[in-house]
Amino acid sequence: MTAVVTPPSAVTRVQARRRVDALAKPTGALGRLEDLAVWLAACQDRCPPEPVENVRAVVFAGDHGVAAYGVSAYPAAVTPAMVRLLDAGDAGVAVLARQHGVRLRVLDIAVNDDLADVPARVRAFKVRRSSGPIHLRDALTRDEVAAALTAGRAVADEEIAAGAQLLISGDMGIGNTTPAAALIAAALGLPADEVTGRGTGIDDDALAGKRDLIDRALRRAAGRAADPADLLAALGSADIAASAAFLARAAGRGVPVLLDGVVSVAAALVADRLAPGAAAWFAAGHRSTEPAQSLALDKLGLVPLLDLGMRLGEGSGAVAAVSLVRSAALLLGEMALLSDVLG
Amino acid sequence: MTAVVTPPSAVTRVQARRRVDALAKPTGALGRLEDLAVWLAACQDRCPPEPVENVRAVVFAGDHGVAAYGVSAYPAAVTPAMVRLLDAGDAGVAVLARQHGVRLRVLDIAVNDDLADVPARVRAFKVRRSSGPIHLRDALTRDEVAAALTAGRAVADEEIAAGAQLLISGDMGIGNTTPAAALIAAALGLPADEVTGRGTGIDDDALAGKRDLIDRALRRAAGRAADPADLLAALGSADIAASAAFLARAAGRGVPVLLDGVVSVAAALVADRLAPGAAAWFAAGHRSTEPAQSLALDKLGLVPLLDLGMRLGEGSGAVAAVSLVRSAALLLGEMALLSDVLG
Repeated sequence: MTAVVTPPSAVTRVQARRRVDALAKPTGALGRLEDLAVWLAACQDRCPPEPVENVRAVVFAGDHGVAAYGVSAYPAAVTPAMVRLLDAGDAGVAVLARQHGVRLRVLDIAVNDDLADVPARVRAFKVRRSSGPIHLRDALTRDEVAAALTAGRAVADEEIAAGAQLLISGDMGIGNTTPAAALIAAALGLPADEVTGRGTGIDDDALAGKRDLIDRALRRAAGRAADPADLLAALGSADIAASAAFLARAAGRGVPVLLDGVVSVAAALVADRLAPGAAAWFAAGHRSTEPAQSLALDKLGLVPLLDLGMRLGEGSGAVAAVSLVRSAALLLGEMALLSDVLG
Repeated sequence: MTAVVTPPSAVTRVQARRRVDALAKPTGALGRLEDLAVWLAACQDRCPPEPVENVRAVVFAGDHGVAAYGVSAYPAAVTPAMVRLLDAGDAGVAVLARQHGVRLRVLDIAVNDDLADVPARVRAFKVRRSSGPIHLRDALTRDEVAAALTAGRAVADEEIAAGAQLLISGDMGIGNTTPAAALIAAALGLPADEVTGRGTGIDDDALAGKRDLIDRALRRAAGRAADPADLLAALGSADIAASAAFLARAAGRGVPVLLDGVVSVAAALVADRLAPGAAAWFAAGHRSTEPAQSLALDKLGLVPLLDLGMRLGEGSGAVAAVSLVRSAALLLGEMALLSDVLG
């Protein structure tokens, strides 16, 4: 996993930029869709790029020990209920996925419930029940980190085998913005108060408590940010570890990724350490209201396509942005050239 | 046309807000998609709203006398060539319209060309060849304004008869950001230097010339902003007049509209004067790089859904945003309720 990732094709990037500039429009008139089209062409090593039809989103679900310490506006029992809703197709991201023809898959990586009533495929990659409360002790053992990374890689391989042209990592789990913010703070060397956000919508008192909890976690795990697997053990969770390995594997196998909110982006930051250079295969779907997401995206050099004030998680911000990625590919492929117009 | 427009249903708005807050998500977690869903439900007077399947975009094309005075990076001959490209389905907005299943129609309102080779339906609402150079004389006679307004209303009626659930007004015409900026400046009482933008991408010298031209036009037409028809005659164009009437008619008949760039928004500003209250039926698709668009949107109380640095016109920014309007309707209609999750 620590092999350096081959970047998207520089040759095709140049070729795609030339084609963008030759389209029947003023130079630069498609704005960020131009950069997106060039990136996509380079990822596919094909100019113009193929239409992006097969888009696949995986929601990595898990509970977190911190949820018992007041960091969320909702009880932990919501996590298994939402996994059922995701599998049934009635959650927010499921509605968006249907609209956009995105294949959606939810996986119980660390839900604190047997979920015996959901199909076995949902539980096939389960690592443990809940991850540890990171302000008191490690989230995971080293063996559990290894199991979660193996799971994430295997899931990416399955989705790529199913023909994925674009992958999305979503999240579900009460309390999960706490380990996400802690991972980002540790990776970027930032204090708790710069990364702590309101998650599902906590009030000022709960926000102060969440910040203190993250601060305790960062002090407890000081000096463990250098090794990504150790960082995940100390401050992460099984679901974020699986997501990070999923993203690293996608990049390593040359499949572009559209990132979602703070949890997805925390996983991406770790993925770029598991597989240096992975970030070149990532684009950002939506700007979260969580401050840690913007900080991590800056570090990764990414600017989100959408900024609609969404903070649902589940992969919803990325799925909402899929049509823009598709537009970029289609515009580069189907628009007339300026030479057709000017004669 | 000066009858006050009936607003979207206040009763359904309240009902839709209650349903949004009851969906299986944290309060406010869908961000601006929540407001969009509530607006759409109020427009349809139906909660949850129907899926927005039938979306129809009309590109109002015309040439402008100002194009001969260095306000554009492109020659006026591009306008008829682009009309042909739009009708053939090879222009940027045509690619996006195909992607989103949006029915696209281009109309020659004032192109400075016979366009004898394009289908007669494209020329059915032609008012004149080009509009006047507004720094020297009026764009249109009063009779031509009346003809353009009649055309816009008739086109709206046709699109509504074809089942439009959402309408878009696009534009095509070298030089058209000049009358658009002048109209917005006159309507808002702003000087030329606050509204002048680079349009297709002019350099600093051309920008200074464009600003001077708009300043001359504003001084020539001083005191004519009160009556919207006289404003269109003085500073507008036949294509913008038709677009304004199209938007006013859509609002008057209770069909919501997604606005595009500076030309579409200039028409919307006039539409809200032709039919006071029309703006309540408008949403904004994309923030243009033209400063006049943002100033006019502020006046109309609208914030664009997308901000991708696009400046293509043609209705492209609005068509790119259609999937978000559709998402809003689907989320309100198809997501589970929080009571299903919390039990």
